[in-house]
Amino acid sequence: MPDGLGLPTFLLAFASALLGAKLLGELSERLGQPAVLGELLAGVLLGPSVLGLVPLTGGVLLLAEIGVILLLFEVGLETDLGELARVGGPALAVALAGMALPFLGGFFLTRALGHPALTAIFVGAALTATSIGITARVLAELKALATREGQIILGAAVADDVLGLVVLAVVSRIAGPGEVDTALVLSATGLAVGFLVVALALGIPLGRWLVGIVGRANVRGILGAASVAFALLVALAAKKAGSAEIVGAFATGLVLARTNRRHDITQAVKPVVDVFAPLFFVAVGAQVDVALVNPFVAGNRPSLLLALGLTLVGFLGKFAAGFCAWGKVRRAFIGAGMVPRGEVGLIFASLGKATGMLPEGVFVAVVLAVFATTFLAPPLMKLLHLGAADGVSLP
Amino acid sequence: MPDGLGLPTFLLAFASALLGAKLLGELSERLGQPAVLGELLAGVLLGPSVLGLVPLTGGVLLLAEIGVILLLFEVGLETDLGELARVGGPALAVALAGMALPFLGGFFLTRALGHPALTAIFVGAALTATSIGITARVLAELKALATREGQIILGAAVADDVLGLVVLAVVSRIAGPGEVDTALVLSATGLAVGFLVVALALGIPLGRWLVGIVGRANVRGILGAASVAFALLVALAAKKAGSAEIVGAFATGLVLARTNRRHDITQAVKPVVDVFAPLFFVAVGAQVDVALVNPFVAGNRPSLLLALGLTLVGFLGKFAAGFCAWGKVRRAFIGAGMVPRGEVGLIFASLGKATGMLPEGVFVAVVLAVFATTFLAPPLMKLLHLGAADGVSLP
Repeated sequence: MPDGLGLPTFLLAFASALLGAKLLGELSERLGQPAVLGELLAGVLLGPSVLGLVPLTGGVLLLAEIGVILLLFEVGLETDLGELARVGGPALAVALAGMALPFLGGFFLTRALGHPALTAIFVGAALTATSIGITARVLAELKALATREGQIILGAAVADDVLGLVVLAVVSRIAGPGEVDTALVLSATGLAVGFLVVALALGIPLGRWLVGIVGRANVRGILGAASVAFALLVALAAKKAGSAEIVGAFATGLVLARTNRRHDITQAVKPVVDVFAPLFFVAVGAQVDVALVNPFVAGNRPSLLLALGLTLVGFLGKFAAGFCAWGKVRRAFIGAGMVPRGEVGLIFASLGKATGMLPEGVFVAVVLAVFATTFLAPPLMKLLHLGAADGVSLP
Repeated sequence: MPDGLGLPTFLLAFASALLGAKLLGELSERLGQPAVLGELLAGVLLGPSVLGLVPLTGGVLLLAEIGVILLLFEVGLETDLGELARVGGPALAVALAGMALPFLGGFFLTRALGHPALTAIFVGAALTATSIGITARVLAELKALATREGQIILGAAVADDVLGLVVLAVVSRIAGPGEVDTALVLSATGLAVGFLVVALALGIPLGRWLVGIVGRANVRGILGAASVAFALLVALAAKKAGSAEIVGAFATGLVLARTNRRHDITQAVKPVVDVFAPLFFVAVGAQVDVALVNPFVAGNRPSLLLALGLTLVGFLGKFAAGFCAWGKVRRAFIGAGMVPRGEVGLIFASLGKATGMLPEGVFVAVVLAVFATTFLAPPLMKLLHLGAADGVSLP
């Protein structure tokens, strides 16, 4: 097929993104950090501001978009709404406080520095969502998934993920007309929550029906292909309903998680995510211009200071939220488990950049703050968990 | 990320391609035909000439290209060069005759109808390669993989696949400068064979080294991602060496098939192929303009007649090649097993169309002939195999 698509450039970008992401991901894991951190750093290195191997062309951005849609689909598949009900009240309290505190902190800090309200909303929103992927992986590494703290963290992260996507839907709705207005916020909230409710209400029987049909088919790969097609269509519907594509993909995951083929679908989707999701993280990293991070350039200092402030606010807000849990639990460990931001924060950042709501300096500050919280959490969780295991008394 | 990529259009195209391909693929299998036939027909229906749900935009063609690169990578992974050595002489004789006869038939038929030599070369070349995927699937369904006939068919199809890709490399090299010249043909052959030899010679130790490195890594999905990256880089190298991307992807498959992680790599790549390869077949089908197939339009008759002629030539050439096998074997069954063309023929056709070597009418004729041989083979194989099982004497 034609080379007019820039196929050679694309092949090189795709291959180097995959290799760079996995190489730095592995290095990152060996240093006790989540792999996603390495993937982001690989993007910074491969992107236009350093090596230039991954240019931000249409093809790269399109595949990155497919990557993040499939990733959120998989996160949805691995999310169990039932979990939340089981861990009950404390998880919801932690989730709500963990969204409100960093949002308010980020919002007021950004406003205090003289940025417009819309920018401040994006910054606050980018700090709301805990990365369920990172948190779950750290909990699994610590063998703390089945503890009461682990259950609360997971439950809160699940609630957070759903609520964070609602916030994302609201924020992307607001980003369109470009002004804040209570009626609009309410209608956007209604649309986003309404879309999720309708998608889940219609989706659960529809998903079961679809899985039933597919179960009677024999052709190779039909379960994976049909599930992905379903996710893409719901993503498109979400977009048409004024929400975000990834909200639709996530909802599809939640819906298909409630069918009896959940395991098979996850098995079919995982390898596809493995190949395409790194492209998203690399593409996000590639959007960071390293020239803006140099602290010796006076012009960079405002965004570096903002990054420091956002990291502090983002960290303290989530950490404090852990103390909203009740019962006989280690609240500091729960707070630490809520700290990593990861993918959803970056989705906010790149959406904010794409819609022009986040100026370059603020975008960099948000990405750096996401990096920093993601970086801080795993060692902190490990420390607090080991401390407890050694019998040290913790709050 | 931006909508400037035509993301909504792309999501709809991708989703409908997947659903259409799997639906008609399933239907096709239920009618005793290979699934790929249904995927092609889905493309015809979804393409611009009928429903228009799958437009041939840059994004669709880019993902289709990734799909076919990954497909050939998987075919390479499932191809064992050792097989050929074991079935030995008869397989090679069948392979060579099975390439020469249809090539000559297609070439002279096209020339006789007044088309230029380059067009005739493309047509002949498109008829050379047996579809190993289809043949292997039919043999498996007939439980004839382990018979001597099955071994010879598979061996010949393997040789055919490698030789067909060499022919493809030669032909795409010729398509560049746009003229036929013996020195050029020889150098193109040298380059293509040389590329394969070098890729295999360097690739086997390199692949083992790579797999060794990757084996010491723990990060999720690294085996699949690194293998795909390797395939993309070798595909790019093949292109740079004047060969075709898919030759490189196929060579990577052959190379990684000789490592101890062959099974794991295949498992990691298969689900990705399941999701992206259908897009290639749908995109090929979408290039057929149904208006040109209507026999009541006088202007279509030349290409329909050509399609009929090419089907005959393509069928008889491969069927006759079966009789080049020696030993106590059912030669007609071997011949029937060589008949289906499938993907490689379509790759030739779309390459010919993209480079302008195949005018619309001839392109349609070649695609129809590929359809027809693919359609004819499975029932014929089933018939000849059943006949033998019932004790009917066959040549």
